[in-house]
Amino acid sequence: MEKKIKIAVDAMGGDHAPEEIVKGAIEAVKEMNAHVILVGQQQAIEEELKKYSYDNTKLEIVPATEIISTDEVPTVAIRKKKDSSMVVGLNLVKEKKADAFVSAGSTGALLTGALFSVGRIKGVERPVLGTCLPDKHGFTFLMDSGANVDCKAKYLEQFAKMGSVYIENMYDVKNPKVALVNIGAEKEKGNALTKEAYELLEQTDLNFVGNIEPRDIPFGKADVVVCDGFVGNTILKLAEGLSMALLGVIKEEITVGHYKLAAAALKKPFGHIKKRFDADEVGGAPFLGLQSLVVKAHGSSKAKAVKNAIKQCILFTEADIVSKIGDKL
Amino acid sequence: MEKKIKIAVDAMGGDHAPEEIVKGAIEAVKEMNAHVILVGQQQAIEEELKKYSYDNTKLEIVPATEIISTDEVPTVAIRKKKDSSMVVGLNLVKEKKADAFVSAGSTGALLTGALFSVGRIKGVERPVLGTCLPDKHGFTFLMDSGANVDCKAKYLEQFAKMGSVYIENMYDVKNPKVALVNIGAEKEKGNALTKEAYELLEQTDLNFVGNIEPRDIPFGKADVVVCDGFVGNTILKLAEGLSMALLGVIKEEITVGHYKLAAAALKKPFGHIKKRFDADEVGGAPFLGLQSLVVKAHGSSKAKAVKNAIKQCILFTEADIVSKIGDKL
Repeated sequence: MEKKIKIAVDAMGGDHAPEEIVKGAIEAVKEMNAHVILVGQQQAIEEELKKYSYDNTKLEIVPATEIISTDEVPTVAIRKKKDSSMVVGLNLVKEKKADAFVSAGSTGALLTGALFSVGRIKGVERPVLGTCLPDKHGFTFLMDSGANVDCKAKYLEQFAKMGSVYIENMYDVKNPKVALVNIGAEKEKGNALTKEAYELLEQTDLNFVGNIEPRDIPFGKADVVVCDGFVGNTILKLAEGLSMALLGVIKEEITVGHYKLAAAALKKPFGHIKKRFDADEVGGAPFLGLQSLVVKAHGSSKAKAVKNAIKQCILFTEADIVSKIGDKL
Repeated sequence: MEKKIKIAVDAMGGDHAPEEIVKGAIEAVKEMNAHVILVGQQQAIEEELKKYSYDNTKLEIVPATEIISTDEVPTVAIRKKKDSSMVVGLNLVKEKKADAFVSAGSTGALLTGALFSVGRIKGVERPVLGTCLPDKHGFTFLMDSGANVDCKAKYLEQFAKMGSVYIENMYDVKNPKVALVNIGAEKEKGNALTKEAYELLEQTDLNFVGNIEPRDIPFGKADVVVCDGFVGNTILKLAEGLSMALLGVIKEEITVGHYKLAAAALKKPFGHIKKRFDADEVGGAPFLGLQSLVVKAHGSSKAKAVKNAIKQCILFTEADIVSKIGDKL
């Protein structure tokens, strides 16, 4: 008999917790061979569960009374709130009672907590947060998207290796194209960090395609793009903000006066555009380099995003990506 | 009698040189009290000038036989091509035969050449490239947008001061809001550089409004945003690429089948949107901290952008921003 994969989910994290988190968990156990552990305030979770009928052998609750909010200082919150849904959930992973953990709560607390409780893969210098950034043809895997704001070149080399293994195994991309985010295409361009990282990346067995300029990222010219977490988070957040601002300006301009009718006729294609750039489609951001997968779902995650994050955890565990990363480093 | 302001223009730099550069110069001398010196290959410039009638006391040619292309190594090009339009133009500024210089040629060569030939303002550690980044309500002045890829906190403090003086005097914004680009809103967020820069900025007399997250930049929440040149160039180029990719996707989705008609009806508002995000409207990128203004116009600049860059140089010189920067530092 196959080993049952168990995914722990932070029922209290995110803007729409616990409703949408519970709903996503229900959808996951219905659609896939998943066993989900909902971690959080028992009564609140049970209230939500009442709304659904489901196979209760595939879903359990592990109680945790506290909640870590996004405005708490991560290190303090993780240390003090031992009975928070986040700490209890991470401990389930640490104690091998769960194979992976999903949370839409505070990114800082999640990364801090995961570093403390879930051990690193041997050889990993810095675990890294990857994000699937929507682009013109699908998505680009951006790492580090915010975990390590000050990096050495060696870390970037490891990010590239981890990202390559992840994309190859999760999305069946053979020999993913890996690029270094840089402000020029030529090898000699960039700052001290990128110059040194380029040298290291050239010597790996990765499909390293050289530098990628930020302007080319949205056109999907590489599968994995590597940078320090400050630059990566800047890319991620600017892309989010700019898309919102641009779509806002478009809405402003076309939903007035006699343009309204034409705009209404375009509702369907605009819906399709939104879907193409919808982060919910691809699950959450994997925190790679640890002994188990920890997924940061977007704070605004609704049921679909939660379900997809659970699916991502199952795929990851089935493909045994932890061992594969260990082999690659 | 007022001193006549003379602006030198690189007639050979950019994708549309010399046609559009000459056209822009002609428009400038027609519309404003400008004296323009076109620098470059005499015959080619004269060919273009033949197309127009204009007041020839306001326009002259200074010949230069060579052209620096964008694929040359900047330091080598500047050193070897002594008779290039760029080097000759910069020397006019150095020798006080011109008050400012505009080029749409190689950014690297222009910055390198300007550093060599046009002296720094006393007290300036690193001259900085500012760019007017279009946003929802107008534009945000981004600096450094690419001149200094490795920065100390002290440089960022100076960028903030120079940017504040520039925006206050050029655009009549009283006490401009200055923000530090950072991956979190709170003071303690960021990397080693931003943490130190925050401390310095707090102690200035600037209207420092704290950190700005990249997602908020397109919404125009600050007048001047400060970062190192690697991050700034990343922001600038990603914004360019993402806008192009998004508008491309929109075009793809709405110009097919029965949507075509509705899309055609929206041509006017889309034209207006393009104009709102059109960099040509605001001139070029000023390289600040030197004894005279050097403006980098976009490589794709057409006549309007060139004209606006010349206008920018006149305003800058009239407002004596060089002295004001000196006083501020």
